Amino acid sequence: MPVQPSEIDELVDIIAEKVRGRLGRSLPVVQATGSGECHSDDNEDCASCGSCVVRRPWSVRAIEQAGASRVGAPSGIGKVDGDFAGMIDHTLLKPEAQREDIVRLCDEARAHHFASVCVNTTWVSLAKALLAGSGVMVCCVVGFPLGAMSPGAKAYEAREAVRHGAQEVDMVMNIGAMKSRDYETVFEDICRVVKASAPAGVKVILETSSLTDEEKIIGCTLSKLAGAAFVKTSTGFAKGGATVEDVALMRRVVGSELGVKASGGVRTTEDAVRMREAGANRIGASASIEIATGKSTGKSTGY
Amino acid sequence: MPVQPSEIDELVDIIAEKVRGRLGRSLPVVQATGSGECHSDDNEDCASCGSCVVRRPWSVRAIEQAGASRVGAPSGIGKVDGDFAGMIDHTLLKPEAQREDIVRLCDEARAHHFASVCVNTTWVSLAKALLAGSGVMVCCVVGFPLGAMSPGAKAYEAREAVRHGAQEVDMVMNIGAMKSRDYETVFEDICRVVKASAPAGVKVILETSSLTDEEKIIGCTLSKLAGAAFVKTSTGFAKGGATVEDVALMRRVVGSELGVKASGGVRTTEDAVRMREAGANRIGASASIEIATGKSTGKSTGY
Repeated sequence: MPVQPSEIDELVDIIAEKVRGRLGRSLPVVQATGSGECHSDDNEDCASCGSCVVRRPWSVRAIEQAGASRVGAPSGIGKVDGDFAGMIDHTLLKPEAQREDIVRLCDEARAHHFASVCVNTTWVSLAKALLAGSGVMVCCVVGFPLGAMSPGAKAYEAREAVRHGAQEVDMVMNIGAMKSRDYETVFEDICRVVKASAPAGVKVILETSSLTDEEKIIGCTLSKLAGAAFVKTSTGFAKGGATVEDVALMRRVVGSELGVKASGGVRTTEDAVRMREAGANRIGASASIEIATGKSTGKSTGY
Repeated sequence: MPVQPSEIDELVDIIAEKVRGRLGRSLPVVQATGSGECHSDDNEDCASCGSCVVRRPWSVRAIEQAGASRVGAPSGIGKVDGDFAGMIDHTLLKPEAQREDIVRLCDEARAHHFASVCVNTTWVSLAKALLAGSGVMVCCVVGFPLGAMSPGAKAYEAREAVRHGAQEVDMVMNIGAMKSRDYETVFEDICRVVKASAPAGVKVILETSSLTDEEKIIGCTLSKLAGAAFVKTSTGFAKGGATVEDVALMRRVVGSELGVKASGGVRTTEDAVRMREAGANRIGASASIEIATGKSTGKSTGY
């Protein structure tokens, strides 16, 4: 039976307490680094880069709610949330993607002011070069799409990608360890990638279609404790993608401190609206132009 | 139109010459290390471990063809080729596989004398501990299943896995680089994993269902030049698996110097017979017990 909303807060407390007991230590042990290159949460001397309107829109919304009526952003920062473009990680992860596909992906992201392009690590250097000066971030996936890579290798892949120019890192949670109730491995795995990726923010892909509601809650809780910037629903390579129910559950568990990225099967503006209403503040999609413009392009690059 | 057998040798020569030209160097630049822990190809002082009957059955067959009527093997080495058990990498790669599934996989491999268990790198240490003294190797996958991980990260994953006990490494070729005709990246990617994996042998997964016949030939040629021990058809996560035609093509290109592993969709003894007849000397399967015994177990762990 699905978990009822009224039970979630209580469950999160119980699970967090249990996880703390299992891990046998005070948490969190890793400082959150925020998303992208913004470290304003950790750094009193915020560099006022002005990119928070597209990189940390949830922070900006919190400032709005606190009474701000105007938020600064430098010229060329791109469209801000309100339309969808600034929420979208323009994504191409299929293994047979060629150089020319990555070039087109980056051209589209630049033209439509998407938040980032999301690519496999073999393409990070190329994407970084193509997007220089565009304000579009390079996001990469690590341990993708199975999440069953050893923690050391996952952290290495993240560190190398950031060195090559990645500004956001989407890692797949160790699903097998979660299923084995080995929360220490799940937690350490995320901690190592978060640490290796700094200053880039980390999104933890839960692969929600493979998890029970309890496992989704534990995954969100561990991600938050480990200093991740986002939780994310799906790889797009498993049997299911993002659902409104999962996005709402994830938002409820992580609160306003982390981002929630809906990915997998988000193909139209209507899909994106439903995900945003459920609590998502980032969308992973390949049909990004269709979502942002509401017009069918008659093609999809595939996930 | 598929490549005709009569054209293959000529094509391989042309492609190898072109690839040499594109790479602009003398090849091979990396020494083959053989498969598993046997280095007899490189080492005149063969340690006479006796494991070649299960680890390098193709070498043993060559000795048979040269006139040998008996081949030594120590006690407990397991069943040799002739049945299928010694040809099978008993495989469990699905991300939701739990600790108890890996324990069962290793128990089955020990009981049936399979060549190896094939697991994701997060499980290498556990499998190594479980299989101590069994004669069953630990095989792991790297850059799996997309092959689109950066070459440095793929090599790191391989090196760490071998340090943790892996004796064979199945890497996925950089399919996107192949499709981009960037053979230098494809080649360097394999070279780095081969070097990082030594003394473990490397199998290069081509993902044949995603390639043209020309790309399959180039993939085999580059694998051979880079010092791989095997070429392998499929990850089991793409749209297609091993076919008789692909195995025959791969065997023809690599000759008798490398192994050929058929994987993806090999589920019955009949499938395995067809693959062996086409030239495969290793089978990757999850339905290994059914293949080895010819009896349905009524269950499959899934790939």
